[in-house]
Amino acid sequence: MGSTALGGGAPARVGLAPKVGSSSVRVRASVASSPQKQHSPNTSGVKSGEEVRIAVLGASGYTGAEIVRLLANHPQFRIKVMTADRKAGEQFGSVFPHLITQDLPNLVAVKDADFSNVDAVFCCLPHGTTQEIIKGLPQELKIVDLSADFRLRDIDEYAEWYGHSHRAPELQQEAVYGLTEVLRDEIRNARLVANPGCYPTSVQLPLVPLIKAKLIKVSNIIIDAKSGVSGAGRGAKEANLYTEIAEGIHAYGIKGHRHVPEIEQGLSEAAESKVTISFTPNLICMKRGMQSTMFVEMAPGVTANDLYQHLKSTYEGEEFVKLLNGSSIPHTRHVVGSNYCFMNVFEDRIPGRAIIISVIDNLVKGASGLL
Amino acid sequence: MGSTALGGGAPARVGLAPKVGSSSVRVRASVASSPQKQHSPNTSGVKSGEEVRIAVLGASGYTGAEIVRLLANHPQFRIKVMTADRKAGEQFGSVFPHLITQDLPNLVAVKDADFSNVDAVFCCLPHGTTQEIIKGLPQELKIVDLSADFRLRDIDEYAEWYGHSHRAPELQQEAVYGLTEVLRDEIRNARLVANPGCYPTSVQLPLVPLIKAKLIKVSNIIIDAKSGVSGAGRGAKEANLYTEIAEGIHAYGIKGHRHVPEIEQGLSEAAESKVTISFTPNLICMKRGMQSTMFVEMAPGVTANDLYQHLKSTYEGEEFVKLLNGSSIPHTRHVVGSNYCFMNVFEDRIPGRAIIISVIDNLVKGASGLL
Amino acid sequence: MGSTALGGGAPARVGLAPKVGSSSVRVRASVASSPQKQHSPNTSGVKSGEEVRIAVLGASGYTGAEIVRLLANHPQFRIKVMTADRKAGEQFGSVFPHLITQDLPNLVAVKDADFSNVDAVFCCLPHGTTQEIIKGLPQELKIVDLSADFRLRDIDEYAEWYGHSHRAPELQQEAVYGLTEVLRDEIRNARLVANPGCYPTSVQLPLVPLIKAKLIKVSNIIIDAKSGVSGAGRGAKEANLYTEIAEGIHAYGIKGHRHVPEIEQGLSEAAESKVTISFTPNLICMKRGMQSTMFVEMAPGVTANDLYQHLKSTYEGEEFVKLLNGSSIPHTRHVVGSNYCFMNVFEDRIPGRAIIISVIDNLVKGASGLL
Amino acid sequence: MGSTALGGGAPARVGLAPKVGSSSVRVRASVASSPQKQHSPNTSGVKSGEEVRIAVLGASGYTGAEIVRLLANHPQFRIKVMTADRKAGEQFGSVFPHLITQDLPNLVAVKDADFSNVDAVFCCLPHGTTQEIIKGLPQELKIVDLSADFRLRDIDEYAEWYGHSHRAPELQQEAVYGLTEVLRDEIRNARLVANPGCYPTSVQLPLVPLIKAKLIKVSNIIIDAKSGVSGAGRGAKEANLYTEIAEGIHAYGIKGHRHVPEIEQGLSEAAESKVTISFTPNLICMKRGMQSTMFVEMAPGVTANDLYQHLKSTYEGEEFVKLLNGSSIPHTRHVVGSNYCFMNVFEDRIPGRAIIISVIDNLVKGASGLL
Repeated sequence: MGSTALGGGAPARVGLAPKVGSSSVRVRASVASSPQKQHSPNTSGVKSGEEVRIAVLGASGYTGAEIVRLLANHPQFRIKVMTADRKAGEQFGSVFPHLITQDLPNLVAVKDADFSNVDAVFCCLPHGTTQEIIKGLPQELKIVDLSADFRLRDIDEYAEWYGHSHRAPELQQEAVYGLTEVLRDEIRNARLVANPGCYPTSVQLPLVPLIKAKLIKVSNIIIDAKSGVSGAGRGAKEANLYTEIAEGIHAYGIKGHRHVPEIEQGLSEAAESKVTISFTPNLICMKRGMQSTMFVEMAPGVTANDLYQHLKSTYEGEEFVKLLNGSSIPHTRHVVGSNYCFMNVFEDRIPGRAIIISVIDNLVKGASGLL
Repeated sequence: MGSTALGGGAPARVGLAPKVGSSSVRVRASVASSPQKQHSPNTSGVKSGEEVRIAVLGASGYTGAEIVRLLANHPQFRIKVMTADRKAGEQFGSVFPHLITQDLPNLVAVKDADFSNVDAVFCCLPHGTTQEIIKGLPQELKIVDLSADFRLRDIDEYAEWYGHSHRAPELQQEAVYGLTEVLRDEIRNARLVANPGCYPTSVQLPLVPLIKAKLIKVSNIIIDAKSGVSGAGRGAKEANLYTEIAEGIHAYGIKGHRHVPEIEQGLSEAAESKVTISFTPNLICMKRGMQSTMFVEMAPGVTANDLYQHLKSTYEGEEFVKLLNGSSIPHTRHVVGSNYCFMNVFEDRIPGRAIIISVIDNLVKGASGLL
Repeated sequence: MGSTALGGGAPARVGLAPKVGSSSVRVRASVASSPQKQHSPNTSGVKSGEEVRIAVLGASGYTGAEIVRLLANHPQFRIKVMTADRKAGEQFGSVFPHLITQDLPNLVAVKDADFSNVDAVFCCLPHGTTQEIIKGLPQELKIVDLSADFRLRDIDEYAEWYGHSHRAPELQQEAVYGLTEVLRDEIRNARLVANPGCYPTSVQLPLVPLIKAKLIKVSNIIIDAKSGVSGAGRGAKEANLYTEIAEGIHAYGIKGHRHVPEIEQGLSEAAESKVTISFTPNLICMKRGMQSTMFVEMAPGVTANDLYQHLKSTYEGEEFVKLLNGSSIPHTRHVVGSNYCFMNVFEDRIPGRAIIISVIDNLVKGASGLL
Repeated sequence: MGSTALGGGAPARVGLAPKVGSSSVRVRASVASSPQKQHSPNTSGVKSGEEVRIAVLGASGYTGAEIVRLLANHPQFRIKVMTADRKAGEQFGSVFPHLITQDLPNLVAVKDADFSNVDAVFCCLPHGTTQEIIKGLPQELKIVDLSADFRLRDIDEYAEWYGHSHRAPELQQEAVYGLTEVLRDEIRNARLVANPGCYPTSVQLPLVPLIKAKLIKVSNIIIDAKSGVSGAGRGAKEANLYTEIAEGIHAYGIKGHRHVPEIEQGLSEAAESKVTISFTPNLICMKRGMQSTMFVEMAPGVTANDLYQHLKSTYEGEEFVKLLNGSSIPHTRHVVGSNYCFMNVFEDRIPGRAIIISVIDNLVKGASGLL
C-alpha cells in the first residue's frame, strides 16, 4: 500500500481517505472476511497519539452507518459530529441499534453542525443536496464525498444524467476521483475526494489495467452486474420491501443506470478514446454484495492467462484487490463485510473472448471502505 | 365438508365465504401445498352454470392479490370490479405482474365502482375506512370483510384498541365472525362476514375446541407466534425493507398487538368466562407463513394425547385442518400457498403442560382463503 | 395451443406430455402466478371421463414432487405408482409433507413397480440410471424423461459431457426433444419425450425463433444466467446448505455446464450451422426461479423492436410464453410456481446490439411443467 | 470486565478464554455490531509483546472458522496449528475462502498436530471424539472446548442425553463451565474450560441472576427459542439445504434438545433446587442469530421493572451484556457478528408474569466469542 499517509505538512490531518482506509479497514475483522494484518506499518504518516476528528454528514443511511462502524473502533479517529436532518436529536443507537454500544455524539441537523473541532468530513448525503452542502463547508476541511456529485468530470454529462445543472462546478474541477488503487498519488494531495460508485469500483478495478495495457478491445465490453439491496439505500420504497425482493432477481435500469457514465469515463480515460459499454444491473435478494461479470474480447494473440497475469502483477502489492488462484470463482459471500475485491479471469468457450468476475461488498469497497 | 353452500333461497349467491373457500381453494394447487380434491361435491348449492359476480375492494394489497389469485381461475366466479384508489386506471397486471396473464377488469377508485352487476364483495381495505365504505354498499350485496373492522363484537373494545369510535355499530351487530370450522352455520346465513385475523385463526382453531371441552386451563395460556412479512401489508415502511428484515427475527407489539382482543374474545366465548392471554408475536424473514406455539396447562388428569385425540376427532371431517401424525412437527413451508392449517400436540417436559403448534399461510387460511 | 392431445388412436393415453401441461398446469393457481383459464378447450383429445394412469419414477426429488403437485389435483390423471428406491415403503407425505393431504400410493422401489395399470411414465431419475431403467420399461408406455439422458442427439457428445458411453443409443434415436412450443407436432406422436433442461428452455424459447428468422448473428451470443438452488436437486451437499447459499451469488461451471451442448444443439439446428455460445450460469439465493440474460448482436439493419415483434407474433397463440409490454422487465418472482416464460427485448447502449431477458420457474416450465 | 487475565504465574499464557474474548472480540467491528472499545485496559495480564500460540482443532467447521476470524487479526495471538482430519493438507482459505487473505498454517490431521509450540487449544470437534482427543493432549496446554463434552457435571446425565458413557470422567471433574459473566473467577484458574452452548448462554445470562435473587419462580419457566442454521454445523444434511430452509420456520427437538440438561443444570444451581423447564427450539431461515423468549412467573410482589433493574445492575460493568432501554426490543440483527447479548424485560398481559427476550450470535457469544 506504499505510503498511505498522503504527504503534506501535517500528515495526520492530510490525505484522509487513504489513511482512513488503510488503518480502519485493517483493524476490522468482519463476519465474512478479515484483512491480513491488524496494524499497518504504512500508517506511519500518522503521528502516534494524533487523532483525526471526523464529521459524518448523513449518518442515518447505510453508507453512513458503515463509516461509523469502521471508524468508531479505530484508535486514530474520533467521530465528533454526526448529522441526520430528519433524525436530529436522536441517539445514533436508536437509528442503528447494532451500533448502540458505541460512544458517539447525538445526531444533529447539518445546519447545526459545529465543524470547529473537525479535521475531515465524510459526506453521505443524496446527490444534488451534496453540492450545496459541501460548497458551504469550511475550506480547511478534508472531504470525502460518497455521493455521485463530483464523480463525473464533465458537468454537462452530470446535467444529462442527473437532470439538473451542477451547482458547484468549481468544486467539480478540484475533486479527485477516489479509486485508490488507480489514483493513489492524486488522492494523496486532494482536499475533496469523490468516492467511486459501487458498480464502477467493481468494473474499473479489473478493466482499467487491462485497457491501459491494450490487452482487451474496447468495442464490445458487456457487463452483467448484480447488487444487493442495500445499494438502493434506506428510503422506504414499496419495490424494496422484503416481500417484494426475497427469493428473486430482476434486472433494472437496463438502458440507463447512472453508474454508466462514471464507468465509461474511467474506461475511456484508460483507453484514451470514447468507450461505450453494455451494462445490465440486477437486483438480487441479498442485503450486501456485488458481482460484476465482464465479457470481453481480447486483443489479437492475447490469452485469458495473459489477462490474469497482468492483473496479478498490477495488484501484487495491493492489500485489498486479490486475484484468486486457478479456477477459483469469486463469491460475494467471501467479501461481504470486508474491503476486499476478489476477482478472477476465465477463458470463454468462444475463442478470443474472456470472462472476468469481480466481487465486492457494495457498502464497503463499493462505498464506505475507501482504503 | 358438510354443506358449504350456506343455504338461503339463492344459494349460488348466498353464503359466499365458505363457498368461495370450498371451491376456489380446492382447485388451487400451490407451490407448497395442494388440497386433496379438485372438485368438491359440496358446492352443490351452486347451480351448475351459475356464476357469482365479484367485486374486490382494495385489490392492490397482498390480501386483494390473493383473492384474485384464488378466484380468477375458478369456474364459478367472475371478477367484475376491482378497486384501488391510488392506482385507479391502472391494469391489475402492472400492480401484480404475476397475475398479468389473467383476464381482469382495470382498477377503479371505490367511488367509481359500479356494483350493479355484482353479487358479492370482498373488502380488503384498511380498518376505519372499511366501516364507511361498507356502510355505503347496496344492501343486497353479500360482503366478506378482510379488515379488522367487524371482528370485535364489543365496540368499546374496538374503540380502545383502534383509537376511534366505531362508525358502523349497527353493521357490527349484524356481522358474523367468519371462522368457518367453528361457525359454519352462522356464516351460511350471514350477509356480512368478518373474516378472522391471521394470528386469531392459527390460535383459535386448536384452542377453541380444547377450551370448550374443558381439557385445558384458561389461566395461563402463553402464545409465542411468528409471522411472515406480508402480514404487515404492502405499505412502504423502512422497517419492512429487505435490508432491515432479511436474516433475522424480532418480537413486536409485545404488550398490545391488535389481534389480542380478537383472540381473547374467541377464547372467552369458548370458556364462557373472561380469558386473558400472554401473546408475543415475532416478525421473521419470510414472505408468508405463520406459526403459533401455544404453551398450555392441562386440566387435572388430562394428557397431551387427550388433547390430540379431541382435536383429531373435531377436525375429522374438515378438509383444511389437519392433525399431523405421531411426532411430526408442522413447518410453515408445508402450508404456504395453501388453505391448510397443520397442527400437532406435544407433551411438555413440565408435567401437566402441553405444547401445541399450528401453522398456516397468513395470506390464505389467515386471510383470503376463507372457508 | 392448438390440439395438445398428440394424436394417435387413443388420444387420452397418447401424447401425454403436452396434454399434461395444457390441463394440469392450467388448473394450477400458484402462489406467484396463475394461468388464464382453468379448463382448456384444447384438451378435447381426452375423452370425458377417461383417466390417464401415471407412474412417477424418482418421486422423492424436487422434479418428482412438482409432477405430483401438478397431477394430483387434475381431473384427468391418476397417479398409480410412485418410486423412490431409498425411501421405498414410506408415505409420500412423509417425504414431502406439503403434499400430505393428497391421496397417493406409497413409495416403492423401481424394481418392485407394477406397470400393468399404468399408461404413462414420468421419469425423474439421475442421468445414466435413467437409460437403463427406461430401456426396461414395457413398450406400450408413453414416457416423459426429465433427466438429461435423451436430450443430446449425438451420443458421442453425450459421452464427452457425461463421462460414459450411452447405454440406450436406440432409444436416443427414437426420443423427441420436448420443447413444446418449437416441436409440438413431433411431440404429439412420440413415445419417448426428452424434456428439455431448465437453462436450455429459458434460452431457446427466445433465441430459436430469432435465429431461424436470421434476425440475430450467431457468432457472439453471450448468456449470463441465474438459477435458484432447487436446480441442484435434493442431494445433501455442503455447498448447497442454507448457510453456504443464503445472501449471495456465485458463478459456477463457467467453462462447461452440461446444459451448454443442449443449448448449442438447439441453436445450431435453428441456424443450420454450428453455434458456439458463451454461457455463464450463476447460483443465487432463491429456491426457485431462473433468469437468462442474452446479449446478442443483431443482423444488419435489424432493431430491438424487430426482435420484439418477431417474438410477439411467434408466441401470439401460446398460453405459456408471454412477451411483456413496453419496457417492463421480467422478474423471476412473476413466474415462480407457474408454467409461464415471461420475456422482453431491450436496446443495448452499444449500437447494433440487443439484450433479451427471459424468466421461468426452473422446476415448472424448466422441468415438470411440460407443455 | 474486571481482571480478565486469569491470574497465575504466567498470565499471558493463563486464563485464555476470557483474555481471548476481551481482546480479540473487542478489536472486531463486525458487519452488524461493534464493541465499544478497541483496546481493553483489562488485558494487562498479557505482557506487552507476549504472544499466545494457539492450536485450533476441528478448524473446518463454523465455530472453528469463527475462532480463526477472531484470532487471526489479534495482536496477542498467533495461530500455529489448525487441524481438520478430512481436509488435512488443504489450505484454510480453500475451506473458508472469506479468510483466504489471512496468513495461516495449512490444515493437518489431529494425529499429526505438533503441540510443542502451542500454549492453548481451542477444540471444535464433535462430542464424544472430543473426550478422547482432549485426554491425549499435553498437560501444560490450556484448553477451551467448544463441544458439549464437558458441560454436564453429572456424567450419568451425559450418558443419558448423549447415548454413551463419558470417556474422560476425570477431566469432567476438572472442567470449568465457561459462562464468563457468571463464573469469571473459576475460569481464571481453569486449565480446561467447557464453553457453554448457544441456547444455554442466551437463557442463563438473564435467568441465572433473577433466580439467584429469587425474583422469579422456577416452577413454570417456558422458553421459546429460535436459532439460525449455522447452529446445525456444516455437515451435509438434506434437512439443512437452502431449498429446505429458506422462507420458513419449524420447531425441532421439542421434547429433548440436548441443551436442556445444560440449561437445567445452570438454573438448578442458581435455584439450589432441581429446575425443570419447558424448552421449544425453532430453526429459522437465517445463517446466524439466536433469540430466546422466556415466559416467567414473578415472585409475589415483584414487577417486571424489578427484573429489569436487577439485570441492569448485575450487568452494569459487563461489556458484552446489554440491557436495552425502555421498550426497545432486541433484534437478532443487532448482535450478529458480535459478542454481545442484548436483552430486555417486558410486562406480560397476564398479571404476575413477565417476558424476557435475549439475542446473541449463536456462533460468537453462543460459541467462539468466549468472554
